[in-house]
Amino acid sequence: MLKNVKIEKHKILMFNFVTFYYRKSIKYMKRDNDFVKAKIISIGDELLIGQVVNTNASWLGNKLTTNGIEVISTLTIGDGEKDIVDALDACSDVEIIVMTGGLGPTADDITKPTLCRYFNTELEFCQDAYDNIMSIFTLRGYQMSERNKGQAYIPKACRYIPNRYGTAPCMWFEKGRSVYISMPGVPFEMKNVFEQEILPMLLSHFKVTPYINKVVMTTGVGESFLADKIKDWEDALPEFLSLAYLPQHGMVRLRLEGRHPNRDFLQKTIDNEIDKLTKIIGEHIFGYDDTPIAEAVLNKLKAAGATLSSAESCTGGTIAKMITEIPGSSEAFKGTVVSYATSVKEEVLGVSHEDVMRYTVVSRQVAEQMATGVRALLKTDYAVATTGVAGPGGATEENPVGTVWIAVAGPDGVISKKYNFGKDRGNNIERAAITALEMVRNSI
Amino acid sequence: MLKNVKIEKHKILMFNFVTFYYRKSIKYMKRDNDFVKAKIISIGDELLIGQVVNTNASWLGNKLTTNGIEVISTLTIGDGEKDIVDALDACSDVEIIVMTGGLGPTADDITKPTLCRYFNTELEFCQDAYDNIMSIFTLRGYQMSERNKGQAYIPKACRYIPNRYGTAPCMWFEKGRSVYISMPGVPFEMKNVFEQEILPMLLSHFKVTPYINKVVMTTGVGESFLADKIKDWEDALPEFLSLAYLPQHGMVRLRLEGRHPNRDFLQKTIDNEIDKLTKIIGEHIFGYDDTPIAEAVLNKLKAAGATLSSAESCTGGTIAKMITEIPGSSEAFKGTVVSYATSVKEEVLGVSHEDVMRYTVVSRQVAEQMATGVRALLKTDYAVATTGVAGPGGATEENPVGTVWIAVAGPDGVISKKYNFGKDRGNNIERAAITALEMVRNSI
Repeated sequence: MLKNVKIEKHKILMFNFVTFYYRKSIKYMKRDNDFVKAKIISIGDELLIGQVVNTNASWLGNKLTTNGIEVISTLTIGDGEKDIVDALDACSDVEIIVMTGGLGPTADDITKPTLCRYFNTELEFCQDAYDNIMSIFTLRGYQMSERNKGQAYIPKACRYIPNRYGTAPCMWFEKGRSVYISMPGVPFEMKNVFEQEILPMLLSHFKVTPYINKVVMTTGVGESFLADKIKDWEDALPEFLSLAYLPQHGMVRLRLEGRHPNRDFLQKTIDNEIDKLTKIIGEHIFGYDDTPIAEAVLNKLKAAGATLSSAESCTGGTIAKMITEIPGSSEAFKGTVVSYATSVKEEVLGVSHEDVMRYTVVSRQVAEQMATGVRALLKTDYAVATTGVAGPGGATEENPVGTVWIAVAGPDGVISKKYNFGKDRGNNIERAAITALEMVRNSI
Repeated sequence: MLKNVKIEKHKILMFNFVTFYYRKSIKYMKRDNDFVKAKIISIGDELLIGQVVNTNASWLGNKLTTNGIEVISTLTIGDGEKDIVDALDACSDVEIIVMTGGLGPTADDITKPTLCRYFNTELEFCQDAYDNIMSIFTLRGYQMSERNKGQAYIPKACRYIPNRYGTAPCMWFEKGRSVYISMPGVPFEMKNVFEQEILPMLLSHFKVTPYINKVVMTTGVGESFLADKIKDWEDALPEFLSLAYLPQHGMVRLRLEGRHPNRDFLQKTIDNEIDKLTKIIGEHIFGYDDTPIAEAVLNKLKAAGATLSSAESCTGGTIAKMITEIPGSSEAFKGTVVSYATSVKEEVLGVSHEDVMRYTVVSRQVAEQMATGVRALLKTDYAVATTGVAGPGGATEENPVGTVWIAVAGPDGVISKKYNFGKDRGNNIERAAITALEMVRNSI
């Protein structure tokens, strides 16, 4: 329906961003002609009603994109035959349709019979699929039920793709120039089958155009000011590159991306543009390619040959979790004391009982003593401590929900700062942990 | 296109699950006639390429569903004019269209000008929006830029909805019987505006049919066996109720849900059916309504007047994080020692150096001494400890990646068990933490 939408130029010139309409159009046309495109369809009522967050779609989006396949849309629908059929009918404009979900053995899983009817085929027994289901049940020490035997029947018209991680077989259909793939919705099974079986098949079936992106992580400057600062650079970008802004938690991530038949040329061009960008806004850049802040901290610690520990009250182990999620973190991170109880602050970390009485547990004195205490106890070069009111309970007149004291102890002494992050418990915990790591990073 | 799909009954009778096709059809027809329906459209390249997980869609799906508005689909598209227009064109079958994203001040945000053209209107200056932007900049101590001033222009044809949490105004369009809502993609801003402004407006604009769901959490029994066990009960459910199975990490969640004009009758019927279900599979039920396992543990601890601590090596604080995410956890949870370094295990927790040398750090002896050590140190009734190889490094012949020892110390002594969870670091950490909490729950 784009043809019905007229551009009334005189009305829209007042906004900078509208002038970029033209570049978007060019991008769309290029994509329509040149690139292998995919749509992702996630099937499951639990996703629609928000019982489960759809992490499969973003994982698949990332795998497809970085392998040169452009993702046009991801659609989430319920376990209903008409919904599935309508969704498939709307996919004739792409080469690859990736479906997840609805392949379980119970009554609410209807993807397989629906695909059977959609591709005008019927189910037949598949010995390989049966053997696979049998081996999984044997491994788990369970007996196979009639329902699970049903999972060994697959549509005649499809290519069977084994799923070594679960009982639901995967399916590959072809229709015209398009490939339709159906995988289970269990993330662990889906990811393994997609990486090990399906992605290699797709890359040998289609000739894809290389895609590369580079993400620049900035902090300390707003989206608008950043955009003004780099406007000349952005306007001069080659036509096959585009830039996106992604603000979050006081950071702005800039994503430069593009597609080009010549991968080396594409890589060199992106590297070159990132060099130019770094010259303009280098002071605000703290990392690249979605480096977690915990990884940036670990890298600085390792470079300095230093170690870290934490004493966590309101963050309750979140700092430790963020650090230990990074492989190899044990080189620089020695441990944590989560001192949720005041007695633990005093008896394990050596916080002064008198100071707790005089200044309360949410105070500069307690935060600093927790930091120096855990630094001495775990014998590390640096230590970070948090104490605050995450909410919803625990607020006082002096310390409303969201109040957090953060202290960092290091070879040169202790620094500490008071923050207020707001009213939401989850947000307060996360913001406090990120801010604590940022304070450590600036101290090393 | 459903009319083109013939049901060939003789071919599909072989499977239990196919016989449920009819109920699904009935469900769909009912929904089409009776209920207020919504589609969610998430706009943003960062979602499509998997740089950001779309938590907005699941949050909105939950809010809409539990307020009686049936969510038909959630669609994620990129920041392209044609994509947005095509998505809107496909929404004529629902009453409510909720859009998020693409309202920022930079060149890649094109939702507002696109909506302007789609609804055949033009932008005009809005003093309220301008004042709101100004107040946000004043609060943050920044100066307003020309780009942000542009955010104060909104389409003439829309109803302006203030966003007190950010600079992008929200918009409410009406076309035929449908309402189109556009909100920013920043989760914090979106959630506040939706709950405080938009949801009340929707509920006064549309007459909705009450919806209720109840989730039953089971463990220790597979999806197929559960389905067989409750088949008679499931088959006898009233027509306006339906059941879904959701297997995950060794648990199966059962969701019973329905819509009915009489909310009290609906609630009573669901309560009654859940009572019947509990009589059949009560032994496998550990909670309701997506109670996190950590909350089930805390409830048992509080009921017993007991306290808990943890000593975490491979889980690196994840158990503590899962517990402290629950409001009020400080009543029963005293703290944690994350003993990532062996020296911390020995010096802080009192693990025997000889045993570390003889049995390695990933052993029954070390796990049990960590549990008894932290129980004594933090003076709690129960203590749980983990030590293992999360991967990818650290594996030995005896302890491959995924090996985890978990120990629980309590008033009656120590129990411990060895697990292998697989090859993926993130999965190993999460599975170990959940299993550790399950072991604590069974020990109280």
